[in-house]
Amino acid sequence: MRLRDLGEGNLIDRIRDRFQNSKLPVGIGDDAAIVDVPPGHSLVFCSDLLVESKHFVREIHPADSIGYKAVAVNVSDVGAMGGVPMYFVVSLAAPGDLEIAWFDLFYSGVKEACDKFGVALVGGDTSSARDIFVDVSMVGRVPQGGAVLRSGARVGDKIYVTGTLGGSTLGLELLRAGKKDGRAIERHLHPEPRHRVGVAVSKQSHAMTDISDGLSTDLTHIALSSGVTARIYKDRLPAEMGASEAQVLHGGEEYELIITATELPASIEGVTLTCIGEIIPSAKDHQVLLVDGSTESVLRPRGWDHFKAK
Amino acid sequence: MRLRDLGEGNLIDRIRDRFQNSKLPVGIGDDAAIVDVPPGHSLVFCSDLLVESKHFVREIHPADSIGYKAVAVNVSDVGAMGGVPMYFVVSLAAPGDLEIAWFDLFYSGVKEACDKFGVALVGGDTSSARDIFVDVSMVGRVPQGGAVLRSGARVGDKIYVTGTLGGSTLGLELLRAGKKDGRAIERHLHPEPRHRVGVAVSKQSHAMTDISDGLSTDLTHIALSSGVTARIYKDRLPAEMGASEAQVLHGGEEYELIITATELPASIEGVTLTCIGEIIPSAKDHQVLLVDGSTESVLRPRGWDHFKAK
Repeated sequence: MRLRDLGEGNLIDRIRDRFQNSKLPVGIGDDAAIVDVPPGHSLVFCSDLLVESKHFVREIHPADSIGYKAVAVNVSDVGAMGGVPMYFVVSLAAPGDLEIAWFDLFYSGVKEACDKFGVALVGGDTSSARDIFVDVSMVGRVPQGGAVLRSGARVGDKIYVTGTLGGSTLGLELLRAGKKDGRAIERHLHPEPRHRVGVAVSKQSHAMTDISDGLSTDLTHIALSSGVTARIYKDRLPAEMGASEAQVLHGGEEYELIITATELPASIEGVTLTCIGEIIPSAKDHQVLLVDGSTESVLRPRGWDHFKAK
Repeated sequence: MRLRDLGEGNLIDRIRDRFQNSKLPVGIGDDAAIVDVPPGHSLVFCSDLLVESKHFVREIHPADSIGYKAVAVNVSDVGAMGGVPMYFVVSLAAPGDLEIAWFDLFYSGVKEACDKFGVALVGGDTSSARDIFVDVSMVGRVPQGGAVLRSGARVGDKIYVTGTLGGSTLGLELLRAGKKDGRAIERHLHPEPRHRVGVAVSKQSHAMTDISDGLSTDLTHIALSSGVTARIYKDRLPAEMGASEAQVLHGGEEYELIITATELPASIEGVTLTCIGEIIPSAKDHQVLLVDGSTESVLRPRGWDHFKAK
């Protein structure tokens, strides 16, 4: 059966039945959802967009991985503020001739993410379109005044990253080459947001962001907004096995965290943290310096630009 | 200049500069926004999607009306719960060869809506795509336990609608015929959400929803979720001048409110309310009955279905 045979009303009923949540004041099916944020907390609010042929290709990305990832990338954003993710809405546009099976698999991935991250789907919108378009907006909570911004890095801070780098881009390359499984492909299709680490370090860390556009781009964001320079060492970068230098330095969709702090332990919540460098005063520009043996050069942001990319 | 010449980073800077808001703990440009909800309030959370060629056509819908409307329809949803709209994020996908002028005009419409409705843009996401997609997610506040649902209609309630009906669909028809202005076109391009009425009646009303899919469809939602029948009278419907019977009964994108209550005044916040019928017990099915002179018939929902519509 295809989407246009089911119809929009039946599709929404199907989603509501699957994501029924009796703990909410108002969930799916009214004009808006009604949810509560505990006293003493601010709201963390973000959205992330996945577009067919740009973020995924229907032929090589299974529908459940798209549903999972659309939620996971928002969990990562909330975690990168030191927040706890809570509720989300999904806006989904898709061609009327799309098989209902694609949808059911997509929402299986969404459900998997709900269970894994402790978040709940509470609403959204649907439309037809030529291409598939998935936009998730999420709200979470953070103790008032406790959010960790990109702009807080201090001279003398050590720079840490969680996990390994380069795996997601390597995984995409392998998928395009026809491979079906392996650790790098898993990292690309089912990224592990580090929100629990983000919450755990929120009191000790001065600046934090997640790596969605690539280390070079996202660390440059910290340098620019904090008004500092970040010096990192090539031989300290925790490369995913098999990843190229470019994949490690510039690969996007990692969803690892970059954290600056005086000192952090080597492992938090079971996730390895690697100290890759330090924050130093800016001589002129706020930028990232890469030390390779005895040479030091500026690491320009070479991450993803959706409008310029081919 | 085109979008791909500007690039994603510069586009985000441009939006940030335009929507800078020093009153927020964290606004545009970090992983997520941080905002506050006053104590004693629940969060109202919703999203609404506009897709090129489905919700609008680039040639006949000016970019500022698309930006304005994307915000206004969410304001309407929050208001239809009895809530006060506060903050929103915009996810925008567009072709790389789109002129920057389109963007600037789009964000002028967004800004107009911010000023008019007292809401603030706090973040979002961007991507390239073949077609333009705009998804706005909004949060608002409602006193805890004070949200007005679709499911609360009671036997004996009167059924009210705000404003007039049929104008938006008539306006679209006129736009397609090459007309450029007039009241109906204005209703289509710059709908007036009735959120202030929604808040004002929230304590007296038992059920409320906004008319986004058409009176027949949205009133059926109230009947079904409340387990009642709604009887309305054709000669009481407040038709927009020039609108056909089908446009009044089934036309979508009105963003007027349907409210059920024991009794409401004829005008609230300067907006006319019309009593169009009453809630009666359901004999068998929960449905809408339309009285036309001495005959009464079932008014089937004939509103918009995005997947079935041509």
